[in-house]
Amino acid sequence: MNSIDHARRPLLAIDWGTSALRGARLDAAGAPLQERQFARGILTVAPGQFAQVLAECFGDWLNTPDSLCLLSGMVGSRQGWQEAAYCPCPAGFDELAQRLLWLQHGRMAIVPGLSVQREEGLPWPLHDVLRGEEVQIFGALALSGHRSARVLLPGTHSKWAQVQDGRVQTFRSFMTGEVYALLSQHSLLSRTLVADAPWHEAVFVQAVLLAQRTPSVLSSIFSTRTLALFDTVPAAQHASHLSGLLIGEELRAMHLATPHDQAPLLLVGNAALCRRYALALQALGLTATSFGDEATWAGHRALANHLDTA
Amino acid sequence: MNSIDHARRPLLAIDWGTSALRGARLDAAGAPLQERQFARGILTVAPGQFAQVLAECFGDWLNTPDSLCLLSGMVGSRQGWQEAAYCPCPAGFDELAQRLLWLQHGRMAIVPGLSVQREEGLPWPLHDVLRGEEVQIFGALALSGHRSARVLLPGTHSKWAQVQDGRVQTFRSFMTGEVYALLSQHSLLSRTLVADAPWHEAVFVQAVLLAQRTPSVLSSIFSTRTLALFDTVPAAQHASHLSGLLIGEELRAMHLATPHDQAPLLLVGNAALCRRYALALQALGLTATSFGDEATWAGHRALANHLDTA
Repeated sequence: MNSIDHARRPLLAIDWGTSALRGARLDAAGAPLQERQFARGILTVAPGQFAQVLAECFGDWLNTPDSLCLLSGMVGSRQGWQEAAYCPCPAGFDELAQRLLWLQHGRMAIVPGLSVQREEGLPWPLHDVLRGEEVQIFGALALSGHRSARVLLPGTHSKWAQVQDGRVQTFRSFMTGEVYALLSQHSLLSRTLVADAPWHEAVFVQAVLLAQRTPSVLSSIFSTRTLALFDTVPAAQHASHLSGLLIGEELRAMHLATPHDQAPLLLVGNAALCRRYALALQALGLTATSFGDEATWAGHRALANHLDTA
Repeated sequence: MNSIDHARRPLLAIDWGTSALRGARLDAAGAPLQERQFARGILTVAPGQFAQVLAECFGDWLNTPDSLCLLSGMVGSRQGWQEAAYCPCPAGFDELAQRLLWLQHGRMAIVPGLSVQREEGLPWPLHDVLRGEEVQIFGALALSGHRSARVLLPGTHSKWAQVQDGRVQTFRSFMTGEVYALLSQHSLLSRTLVADAPWHEAVFVQAVLLAQRTPSVLSSIFSTRTLALFDTVPAAQHASHLSGLLIGEELRAMHLATPHDQAPLLLVGNAALCRRYALALQALGLTATSFGDEATWAGHRALANHLDTA
């Protein structure tokens, strides 16, 4: 009975990233009762001011008796409130729970990110990291009912996580979104690219398919320039071409790495980006289930339930 | 006798690029008798002012009786003096000569760039282009004495040309240098990268080797970030790591594409960059012969000789 009582105590879920601060009061199932969002990402907060900013934005919720507050995202990075050391993979709820950084014991904690160490034959190890996505991964699992899956989180830095039996075994980052932004804003390609042109599905899909065959993405992206020089396709479609080449490269790399992996594929991110990735996956004969913000809140809820029943 | 007289007439070679205007008076062998360089790249010249700028910088040479002046580089682009349409590959001296854009008949001409059209299974063709490098390619051939070679021209956009029997059969561009600049100046990686740190050979070579094994360069470059997070190697060496990953990706793509190609490998570019590529090639068991500015002048000379003896 004790565990049930705890699982019902008020949960305040905070997703504090680089550019935004979002929070929700969650019901027992992880659905938000109330949500708030502020342009108070960690880069806008001076050191030592995190508690105050949180109180300004969510003070009324924080005063709820017996509540638990979990904070995820870059708030736990070196530039955040306090650094929560990365939790090494394989990692499930047990490992995350052990490595929570408690700001107020039993009341408020920062969820650590995950790290994975790859031995690549170098004299030094190479690491990969994520922070904030761990909660989304577990949320997508909870919402989908799967215990094993490949979870793809597109964004500035896409993350591909491989989950088995409720534990993240490994993951890989791709700088896809950031490279797209750099190329479309600062490179030679930006001179002819119409960055805010509507997305063109057919051109995008052709570029995704092309990415499966070209020797290197460093070479294929130059074709965005020659489309303009030779007027091969209208300028408004060049951004879709570039996007397809980059997202296609990511899929090529992951598809080859796990050709026989039959685990379900879950997509977590904003709706427009998930649609784009889903279409790219479909062009390669793969299907995915997509989740948005609800995965973040469901992940917080699942972790809180684990804490209270452990 | 006639052909010999022509081959001896004064040759003024002009390499007019985006950011610089360089020129040389060449002897019969293609060696420069005199060189000048100005910060008058085509981007600094207003439309209609090209003839005047050329006269200001090289008027005394241009007035030499019976002289020939060849201009190569971005001066023949849409943003240049006059657009010289790309010469399609395969292309040797015959094709280039036929497509010279004469500004003064028999006296002054713009050398066209090269284009190649690849059928990649898309509903539209994809092109690749170069402009200015065609002269360097033929110069490196002349200086090396080879008629067939792979010629690698590293830079903002690297070019790999495949030459058979004096004709460029095909080539491929890589945005390696520009992507390196974007990542080291504008990306998340730039926060911890020491862009002007001295080059670290061992770290560079390890990254070149790593690039032969990693699933995708979009993923591997993120390790530049985690080197900083985990203090795995000193910050001053991270730029060499990133450079090795990008140059290594280029080599991976080209090496795989032509594993049995025994043609000699020629490198043309600035000395520091050629050294870096030569070391990367060496790490893969390949050797290359390097050329600098002399390849540009030798290419102009060889083309002029062809014009006068054709």
